[in-house]
Amino acid sequence: MFKHDKKLLHEVKVDAPNQNYAAMLQEQLGGPQGELKVALQYLSQSFRIKDPQIRDLFLDIASEELSHMEMIATTINMLNGHVPDANNATIGNIEAHVLTGLTPVLSNASGYLWTAAYINETGDLAADILSNIAAEQRAKVVYEYLYRQINDKGVRDTIDFLLNREEAHNTMFREAFNRIQDTGSLKDWGITKDSKLYFNLSTPGDQFFNADNPQPASFNNPNQSTH
Amino acid sequence: MFKHDKKLLHEVKVDAPNQNYAAMLQEQLGGPQGELKVALQYLSQSFRIKDPQIRDLFLDIASEELSHMEMIATTINMLNGHVPDANNATIGNIEAHVLTGLTPVLSNASGYLWTAAYINETGDLAADILSNIAAEQRAKVVYEYLYRQINDKGVRDTIDFLLNREEAHNTMFREAFNRIQDTGSLKDWGITKDSKLYFNLSTPGDQFFNADNPQPASFNNPNQSTH
Amino acid sequence: MFKHDKKLLHEVKVDAPNQNYAAMLQEQLGGPQGELKVALQYLSQSFRIKDPQIRDLFLDIASEELSHMEMIATTINMLNGHVPDANNATIGNIEAHVLTGLTPVLSNASGYLWTAAYINETGDLAADILSNIAAEQRAKVVYEYLYRQINDKGVRDTIDFLLNREEAHNTMFREAFNRIQDTGSLKDWGITKDSKLYFNLSTPGDQFFNADNPQPASFNNPNQSTH
Amino acid sequence: MFKHDKKLLHEVKVDAPNQNYAAMLQEQLGGPQGELKVALQYLSQSFRIKDPQIRDLFLDIASEELSHMEMIATTINMLNGHVPDANNATIGNIEAHVLTGLTPVLSNASGYLWTAAYINETGDLAADILSNIAAEQRAKVVYEYLYRQINDKGVRDTIDFLLNREEAHNTMFREAFNRIQDTGSLKDWGITKDSKLYFNLSTPGDQFFNADNPQPASFNNPNQSTH
Amino acid sequence: MFKHDKKLLHEVKVDAPNQNYAAMLQEQLGGPQGELKVALQYLSQSFRIKDPQIRDLFLDIASEELSHMEMIATTINMLNGHVPDANNATIGNIEAHVLTGLTPVLSNASGYLWTAAYINETGDLAADILSNIAAEQRAKVVYEYLYRQINDKGVRDTIDFLLNREEAHNTMFREAFNRIQDTGSLKDWGITKDSKLYFNLSTPGDQFFNADNPQPASFNNPNQSTH
Amino acid sequence: MFKHDKKLLHEVKVDAPNQNYAAMLQEQLGGPQGELKVALQYLSQSFRIKDPQIRDLFLDIASEELSHMEMIATTINMLNGHVPDANNATIGNIEAHVLTGLTPVLSNASGYLWTAAYINETGDLAADILSNIAAEQRAKVVYEYLYRQINDKGVRDTIDFLLNREEAHNTMFREAFNRIQDTGSLKDWGITKDSKLYFNLSTPGDQFFNADNPQPASFNNPNQSTH
Repeated sequence: MFKHDKKLLHEVKVDAPNQNYAAMLQEQLGGPQGELKVALQYLSQSFRIKDPQIRDLFLDIASEELSHMEMIATTINMLNGHVPDANNATIGNIEAHVLTGLTPVLSNASGYLWTAAYINETGDLAADILSNIAAEQRAKVVYEYLYRQINDKGVRDTIDFLLNREEAHNTMFREAFNRIQDTGSLKDWGITKDSKLYFNLSTPGDQFFNADNPQPASFNNPNQSTH
Repeated sequence: MFKHDKKLLHEVKVDAPNQNYAAMLQEQLGGPQGELKVALQYLSQSFRIKDPQIRDLFLDIASEELSHMEMIATTINMLNGHVPDANNATIGNIEAHVLTGLTPVLSNASGYLWTAAYINETGDLAADILSNIAAEQRAKVVYEYLYRQINDKGVRDTIDFLLNREEAHNTMFREAFNRIQDTGSLKDWGITKDSKLYFNLSTPGDQFFNADNPQPASFNNPNQSTH
Repeated sequence: MFKHDKKLLHEVKVDAPNQNYAAMLQEQLGGPQGELKVALQYLSQSFRIKDPQIRDLFLDIASEELSHMEMIATTINMLNGHVPDANNATIGNIEAHVLTGLTPVLSNASGYLWTAAYINETGDLAADILSNIAAEQRAKVVYEYLYRQINDKGVRDTIDFLLNREEAHNTMFREAFNRIQDTGSLKDWGITKDSKLYFNLSTPGDQFFNADNPQPASFNNPNQSTH
Repeated sequence: MFKHDKKLLHEVKVDAPNQNYAAMLQEQLGGPQGELKVALQYLSQSFRIKDPQIRDLFLDIASEELSHMEMIATTINMLNGHVPDANNATIGNIEAHVLTGLTPVLSNASGYLWTAAYINETGDLAADILSNIAAEQRAKVVYEYLYRQINDKGVRDTIDFLLNREEAHNTMFREAFNRIQDTGSLKDWGITKDSKLYFNLSTPGDQFFNADNPQPASFNNPNQSTH
Repeated sequence: MFKHDKKLLHEVKVDAPNQNYAAMLQEQLGGPQGELKVALQYLSQSFRIKDPQIRDLFLDIASEELSHMEMIATTINMLNGHVPDANNATIGNIEAHVLTGLTPVLSNASGYLWTAAYINETGDLAADILSNIAAEQRAKVVYEYLYRQINDKGVRDTIDFLLNREEAHNTMFREAFNRIQDTGSLKDWGITKDSKLYFNLSTPGDQFFNADNPQPASFNNPNQSTH
Repeated sequence: MFKHDKKLLHEVKVDAPNQNYAAMLQEQLGGPQGELKVALQYLSQSFRIKDPQIRDLFLDIASEELSHMEMIATTINMLNGHVPDANNATIGNIEAHVLTGLTPVLSNASGYLWTAAYINETGDLAADILSNIAAEQRAKVVYEYLYRQINDKGVRDTIDFLLNREEAHNTMFREAFNRIQDTGSLKDWGITKDSKLYFNLSTPGDQFFNADNPQPASFNNPNQSTH
C-alpha cells in the first residue's frame, strides 16, 4: 500500500520563475533517466522478488524516487511562473503553456511523453540490480548536466540533494549485488569457448581488450576514494 | 563506414519451421533487450567517445551485434515457414502473417515496434559502460528464457552461441570499466552527507542495507568462477 | 513524500495460476484505463492545484490507485505461475514468458507499453475533474468485462473490490465537481450564438438533439438510485 | 461514407504569417485535446452504438470535428508563411521547416506525433459520453490558453468559433447523457459497502469528501447560468 | 468540410462472427498500411497543395479511404460477435474483449496503436505522389494476405472490392505523377558525379545494377497488361 | 555479417559549431526520412528476398545508408560544440544538452525518438521497391530543405554528397523495378470493374483524373533530362 505524506522528502525552492529552466528540469521528471522511470522500474522489478531484504530495499528506493518525482514536479511548478506565455519561452517543449496551464507534464525536456519502454525488468536479480546501478549512474550524470546549466541557487540545492541520493542508492544496489554473487544469471549457464573470442570487426587497428583472461571489474565507490 | 559480408558471423539452422518459435524469437530481434537495441546503443554512444581504444571496443561490439541481428532475423525467417497462416499461430504477434509476408519485423514477441526509447546514452563513459554491462546481462537472461522454451536443436545452438557472446562482451565492458576508474562521473562530484542517508520508506521492517560504509561491489566473472 | 506499507490495501488471492487470465488482467495494470494511468493522472493534476481540500482528495485517490496497482500486479504475479511457458499461453501478450521471467509488465493485455499519452491534465479544475469522473467510469467498465471472462473466485473478489472503489472515487469526484460550479472553464468565456448551433452533418435523418435550450445533465448516483 | 465539401465549415484567415503561432496551434491539430483526437474518438465509438439517435449525434459531431481539423490545418498553413526558415522560429517543433515544406503535421505543439493512445472507447454509452463531455471541456480549456497567447485577430476569431462549438457539443453530449440514465454501466453492478469507504491516504489532514452519502453531481450549463 | 452519409460506400457482410478474423482485419483499420493511414496521409498532404486538380484528387481519395475505414470497421464489428470472450480468441490482440466491449480499435492486428509516424508528407508533390503510389501497392499486398487467410465469403467480397479500389487509386496517382514531370524535386537539384557511383559494400559478389546509365522506370499498369 | 571501417564513406567537416544546425540535422539521423530509417528498411526487407542480385542491391544500399548515418552523426557531433548549453540553443530539441552530453540522439529535429513505425516492409518486391523509390525521393527533399537553411559550407558539402547518393539509389531501385515487371503484386490479382471507377467525393467540381484508361507512369530520370 502506498501512502502520501504532504511534507516533501526535502524542501525545495527557486530563486525566480524561469520557463527555460522549467523545461530543462522536465528531463528528470519524465525523461528516460528521470525520477518516474527509476521509481516505476524498481517497483515493477519488486513485484516478483522473493528475498525479503532485497525486496524491501527496492521498495524503499522506489518510494524515495516517487518522492523525488514530487520534489522535481514542485520545482518545475514554481519555475513555470504564473501565466502561460509560450512566446517568451525559448527552449524545450511548450506544453506547459499550451496544454496544461503550467502544470508539469510527464514528458522529457523536449516534450517526448514518458513511456514504459524506458523500464528494464527481467525477473533475474543480477540483471535487475546491474540495470539499477547503471540507471543511478545515468541519473547522476543528467543531474550534473542540469546543475551546470541552471543558475538558480534554489534549484541547484535541490539538484545537489538528489544527485547525492543517487549516489546513496548506487551504494546500496552495489551492496545488494555483492550479496547475490554466484546466483541467478551470474552462474546458471555453462560457459563455452565462444565466450573467450574477440571479433575485431572495426578496422583498421588491433584489439585492445581481451575476452579470454579477464580481471573481475571492481567498483571503487566514490564515497570512499575521494572528497 | 559499414560493410556487409554475405557470410553470417556464425551459421544458423532450424530443425523445422515453427511459427510460435518465430514469434518468440522476435523478442531478441526487436525487443528492449534484443540485438538491434544493443547494436544501436553502442553505435550511438561511440559517436562522441574520444578514447580511441574504447571507441574501437564499442564499434567492434556494435558491429558484432548487427551481425547477431542478422543471425536472429535469418533464423526467424526460417522458422516462419513458407505460407502466411495466422490461423495456425497461437502465441505472439501475427504481423509476419498479415503484414510482411513472413519477413521478420522490427518488433518484440508481442508486436510492439522497436523504439529508440530503449537506448541509453549519456556521453559519460562510466555511465555508458555500466549501461552496457547491464544490457549484456539482460540479453543473456532473455536468451536463457528462450532456450528453455524452444525445443529445436538448431535454434538452441544459435542461442547458445549468442548467449556466450553476451558473456564475452560483458567481460570486455568490465575490463573497460576498470580502465576508467576515477574518471568522469565516477569522480567529478563532491559527495555530501546526503549520500550516506538511508530512508526506510517501506515499512514495517528494518533496513538491511547501509549507505554509509559501503564495500565496493565486485564482479566475479562467471568465466573464472565456474564451469 | 510517498511511503510504502508492506500490507496490501486489500488482500488478494487466486484459485490457481492461469496464464491467460494473467495476460487479460494486464489491461488494468498497464492499459489506458488501468490503475497506473489513474494514479499518475491524479498525481500529475495535483501538482498545481491550489485548493487544499481538492488537492488532498486527488492525492488520497492517487495513493489509493497506486495501491490498487500493487494489488493487480500481485494478482498477475500469482496467475503467472512458476515457469515461463509461452507455448501454453494462448491469448494476449507473451512478454512475461520471454522477457521478464513472469514479472508483471507495465503494458496492456496485448503488450502495448504504457505511455503518458493516456494521461489528461489541463490545469483547469473543471476539466480535470470531469476527466477523472470519466476515467473512473471507464475503469469500472473494464473491470466488468474482466469479471465476466475470468472464472476464478479469488480474482473475482479482487475485481469486485476494485470496481466498487471506482464507484467511491466517482462519487467523490462528483462531489468535488459540485463545489466548483461557476469557476474556471465553467464560467470564464462569453458564450456566443455559435454555441447554439447544430450542424446536421451525418445524413439522411433529422437531428435528435438540440444545442439551444439544454437541460443541465444530472448524475443520478448509482449508490442512491438502485441495488 | 464520408464526403468532402471544398467550402470550409467556417471561413478562416490570419492577419500575418507567424511561425510561432503556427507551432502553438499545432496543439489543436495533432495534440491530445485536438480536433483529430475528438473526431476519431467519436467515430471509433460510433462503430458499435445501437441507438440510432445517439449514433447519429456521434457521427454529426465526428464530422464536424474533422471539419474543425481542416480549419485548424488551413490556419496553420497560412501562419507557416512562404519559406521554410527554422532559424527564425523560436518555440515549438520545427518539423514544418525541416520535414514537410511548411505543410501542417499531425503532431502537437512540441512535435510529439499523434497516437491512438489519446482515444478512449469502451463500448459502454455512459462511459463514452462522459469521456466526450470531458474531452470537450479540455478542448475548450486549450483553446482559451491559445486565445490568450495569440495576438492575431483572424486566428482569434477562429478560436472563438471553435471554442463555442465545443460548448455546443458539450451541451448535446450532456443531453444524451440524460437520456441514458440507469442503463449500461450506470446501473449494472451491485454496489457493496466497499463503495462507501474513504481511504485517507494523504496525511496529515482530515478528509473533506465523503463517499457514503453523496449528492448527485449537477451540471449547470454555462449557456444558462451566465453571459 | 466533411459530411457523413449513413449509407456505406459499398455494402459489407460476413458469413459468421469470427474473433480471429476480426483481429486479423484490424491490420487494415489501424495498421501501417491500413485505411486510416492512407486517409490521413492524403488529407495531410492536401493541406498545402496549390494545384487545384491534384488537390481535388487527393481529397477525393482521402474521403474514399475514410469511407473504406468505415467499411472495415463495420466488418470487424460484425466479426467480433456478441459477447466479449477473450478466452476463445486464439490469435491477435484481445483489446476488443477486455477494453472496448467488442468495438473496433484503432490498432493493428497485434494491438499496436495507430501512430502518425506511419504518415509521410514532404510538401513536395513528386515525393508525396510516389509515397502514395507505394502506399497503395502495399495496401493491396496486405489485402491479398488477408484474402488468402480468411475463409468467409462476405469478408472476401469486401476485401476484393477494396483491393480493386487500391488499384484504381494507384492508377490515378500514376496519372498525376505523369503530369508533374520535371517539377519540384524531380528537377530542382544539380546532379553531380556522386549520383553516378555505385558502392559495392555487400560482398563477396559483383554489382548487378548501375547508377550511371539508367533507363527510366516504367509502370506497366496491371489494368492494361493482363486479366 | 557487418564490419566497420574506421574511415568514413566520405569525409565530413563543419565551418563552426552551431547548436541550431545540429538540432536541424538530427532530422536526417533519427527522423522518418533519415538515414537510420532507410538503412533499417532496406536491411529488414532483405531478410526474405530470394533473388540474389536484388538482395545484394538492398544490402549494398543498406550498408551505405548506415555509413551515411555515421557521417550525419559525426557532423552533428561537430556542430554540437564543446559544452552543453541548452540556454543558447533556440530551436529544436535540447536533449543533446540535458541528456547526452552533446552525443547525437536517435531522434528527429524536434526530439521525437526513432520508431520502427517508420519502416515499410511487405515481403512483396514490387511494393518494397516502390516504397524505397519513394523513401529516396523524400530523403532528397528533406536534404534540400536543410541545405537551404544551413549556411555552413562544410555541412552543405556533406548534404550535397548525400543528396546525390539518394539520386543514385533511386536510379538503382528504378532499375530493379524494371526487372520485376509482371511479378508479385504487379500481376497476381484479377482486376475487376471496381478498379475502373472514380468516386468524386470532394465537391463541388468535376473529376480531373480517370481510373479507366490510364497511361503507364514514366519516370524521367533527372540524371538524363537535365543538368
